[in-house]
Amino acid sequence: MLEKSSNDFIQELSSKSPVPGGGGASAYAGALGMALGSMVGNLTVGKKKYKEVEDDIIELLKKSEVVINNLKSLVAKDAEVFYPLSQAYGLPSTTEEEKLAKEAVLQEALVEASMVPLEIAKNCLEAIHLHEEYAKKGTRIAISDVGVGVIFCKAALQGAKLNVLINTKIMKDQELKRKIESELQEIEKVGLMKADKIYQQVEGMLLS
Amino acid sequence: MLEKSSNDFIQELSSKSPVPGGGGASAYAGALGMALGSMVGNLTVGKKKYKEVEDDIIELLKKSEVVINNLKSLVAKDAEVFYPLSQAYGLPSTTEEEKLAKEAVLQEALVEASMVPLEIAKNCLEAIHLHEEYAKKGTRIAISDVGVGVIFCKAALQGAKLNVLINTKIMKDQELKRKIESELQEIEKVGLMKADKIYQQVEGMLLS
Repeated sequence: MLEKSSNDFIQELSSKSPVPGGGGASAYAGALGMALGSMVGNLTVGKKKYKEVEDDIIELLKKSEVVINNLKSLVAKDAEVFYPLSQAYGLPSTTEEEKLAKEAVLQEALVEASMVPLEIAKNCLEAIHLHEEYAKKGTRIAISDVGVGVIFCKAALQGAKLNVLINTKIMKDQELKRKIESELQEIEKVGLMKADKIYQQVEGMLLS
Repeated sequence: MLEKSSNDFIQELSSKSPVPGGGGASAYAGALGMALGSMVGNLTVGKKKYKEVEDDIIELLKKSEVVINNLKSLVAKDAEVFYPLSQAYGLPSTTEEEKLAKEAVLQEALVEASMVPLEIAKNCLEAIHLHEEYAKKGTRIAISDVGVGVIFCKAALQGAKLNVLINTKIMKDQELKRKIESELQEIEKVGLMKADKIYQQVEGMLLS
């Protein structure tokens, strides 16, 4: 999906074709955010003024690349798990037997369809942690980009959250539902607070 | 820039090359958000259940397309105005004369470099207004996508804001600086409040 042009991605997103949807778009927005963090890292490496933190930045850049690659894979993965879900929704449900069969297939598809956006949210949280480091150690000339990067990762996390909830909402397995939703809540709590703090820090630096 | 693949866009964003940077990325994230709103519109049109609002939705889709096209143009525009700014920063400033000449060129470049992200923020605000309509009139099956779309537009607005401030921060023309910053503040105030309200509404629907 990401091999196509950026214009095509926007075009396909706006169309009524089932994928990409909000889940894949969230993974992609998270990757864009993390890429801005990496840009700050790449602008810092090799600068005499930041020689002391160079090794740390190189380490951060490696971690950032892992997150970007994970999120790129999750764009594709989100499209993959949507297919069986949409098939399940389309099954007949006239007779009692059909209803039971449909429900079973649907419930199975919901598990993966919830786990993928949860995984997107996890990677967005990691991206936010990495932005915290870029804010501390990265070059000051690109400080606004740390703020933009982290606010994209926050929005991507919030987008992933809605895509978890739309699936867990109709999940019958209450134990799994609770497990996924409580993990999500923890990710959201930490991620949003940290992202807001970094953004406000950057904003404060630009307003002072 | 958007003719290249989505993978390349992420790659170029993460590199130390000057463009695309946080401003262009914000315009692009806003276009992604608006595209999700359009997706909801396209999923609504032609459905018997939503026959009554079909004309409104078609109108919304037209307005959404304008916003997407504006934001796509602003990705390129942001790169264009960055060039003279980076040239200005690179001018010599050893003698008093050079300092004065550099300052004059820099101050001129700052005007455009502030106006472009302000224009991005304006379009994100319009995108948020349109999401309010999609939330009211769009198909319920894609309600999560309205929430994802609007939260992307909010982040894009916040990203654009930092790119205005990094330029107005060093602007000498105090009247223009105040004018731009107060317009930005108004856009932010309305946009953030409305975007949060829509997101929370969607979240509430998914949690109930």
